[in-house]
Amino acid sequence: MALKPSAAHSGLEFLKGHGTLNDFVILPDDGAEVALDEGLVRALCDRRAGIGADGVLRIATAGALLDKGVLDTLPNGVGESDWFMDYRNADGSTAEMCGNGVRVFAHVLVSTGRATSGEVRVGTRSGLRPARVLEQDGDRALVRVDMGEPRLLGVSYARVGSRTLAGIGIDMGNPHLACVVPELDEESLRALPVDQQPVFDTEFFPEGVNVEIATPVRDGRISMRVHERGAGETMSCGTGIVATAVAALADAGSETGQVVVQVPGGEVVVDLSEGGSALTGPSVLVAEGVFRAS
Amino acid sequence: MALKPSAAHSGLEFLKGHGTLNDFVILPDDGAEVALDEGLVRALCDRRAGIGADGVLRIATAGALLDKGVLDTLPNGVGESDWFMDYRNADGSTAEMCGNGVRVFAHVLVSTGRATSGEVRVGTRSGLRPARVLEQDGDRALVRVDMGEPRLLGVSYARVGSRTLAGIGIDMGNPHLACVVPELDEESLRALPVDQQPVFDTEFFPEGVNVEIATPVRDGRISMRVHERGAGETMSCGTGIVATAVAALADAGSETGQVVVQVPGGEVVVDLSEGGSALTGPSVLVAEGVFRAS
Repeated sequence: MALKPSAAHSGLEFLKGHGTLNDFVILPDDGAEVALDEGLVRALCDRRAGIGADGVLRIATAGALLDKGVLDTLPNGVGESDWFMDYRNADGSTAEMCGNGVRVFAHVLVSTGRATSGEVRVGTRSGLRPARVLEQDGDRALVRVDMGEPRLLGVSYARVGSRTLAGIGIDMGNPHLACVVPELDEESLRALPVDQQPVFDTEFFPEGVNVEIATPVRDGRISMRVHERGAGETMSCGTGIVATAVAALADAGSETGQVVVQVPGGEVVVDLSEGGSALTGPSVLVAEGVFRAS
Repeated sequence: MALKPSAAHSGLEFLKGHGTLNDFVILPDDGAEVALDEGLVRALCDRRAGIGADGVLRIATAGALLDKGVLDTLPNGVGESDWFMDYRNADGSTAEMCGNGVRVFAHVLVSTGRATSGEVRVGTRSGLRPARVLEQDGDRALVRVDMGEPRLLGVSYARVGSRTLAGIGIDMGNPHLACVVPELDEESLRALPVDQQPVFDTEFFPEGVNVEIATPVRDGRISMRVHERGAGETMSCGTGIVATAVAALADAGSETGQVVVQVPGGEVVVDLSEGGSALTGPSVLVAEGVFRAS
């Protein structure tokens, strides 16, 4: 017996997906017709009373978002006809960028026929983030995203539990402190209380900071955990992964190269080049349906 | 632009709903065709990699579940043509009954045309639980469920934080210790560490116990919190609510009557009669769609 067809036309179409367990409700809304206010974002992201996610990715053209007043201006490099990732945190606030989100966003653009494979131009509030769906097998894809140029801020420290760790401050559009800890291995990394708010230098990071803790590079790989500003420990953080790859390569004496990064939510690859970075990782689409915004 | 229609036929139809924030993935599967094994239940209930819920409610006829070997025998009072709530916890285990789940289950039966309003016969592993959709307005309903006869087990105690609280042991198909605390008010109830595992008498409750803490009856109302066996503090527990209403009425010198119960997830009403109990509360349907079991 089918579900009542009438109900399928009274709500909001959505998809749900995740990139290394950073999960999203995706709203296809090409013309930016949906009044995506804080209340609706919270309702969608509520894990018990709604669908549940870390954030919402609205799919719209940059031009439509300009017309509707969601964007005041076009961010750097973004054209009116580009698809724009209108990202909202679960609490309804906007965020500039979300590296895991761009992978899932590009995957949906291709899987729904909005873009063809090859390079996909993804607009974000941090500017254009070109992406490429490298492989696609049904609802799983491997996606590479241009993450821009990491900017070094200098050396600082974090206190995690009873340990004081040196780290490199890195600006990825948002602030990071990436601590690569000599002699740390996967087991001792698991034992660190990264779930608790690390102590950091509030003069160095007056607006707070995302703190990453990682093992040194071994055989081209590192393992890391991340404590995100305002969110606590998370399974994965795209910008934090790139920042940590920068710190890990620097620790190994390099400025460019490739690092395979193991986060609690899965495995991704970072490529650092002169003046640029790219993050390659999985995207999984889990469900699609209609949200009943009653 | 519509979602790709092809994807709609390659997965599992589902609905998502909740009763006082106890949330469920509902699978319409009348003929019990779906191989609902532990892995699939976990995948559906995973809050990041799946849809996310406290449990799964499969809708099937009792006869189909018998035919497919999901049920060995028909539970007390259940006929082969009755709709059966094949309930699974998020970890894949089966559970006898779920009071909040029966409300959502009966709501879906009526909203999808599987049952008409009036009394709905709902089979559960604890036996027949007749339910009635009292009101329905789109995706919200008010549903009354016959919860059977509470069986008194005697007096025991729980230690919650630094306090030792007397309670009444009550069997609702599952074991409860309902502690109605003299002079407790809503504020002091909020301050109790109900999220931590209470200490209880393991000889009295060899298989563990659900512990409820409640204010005494005032103007026909109580407030309560619940620590569920194996799950920690939850927003609502149907059988626990009935058990606590029994204890609260007993504390006020009655064996029958009505109590309005405030739980963290909302408000419900318990009616106690000679040899029976009924729980009336909300059901909300949030979304419907297709799960991609890849």
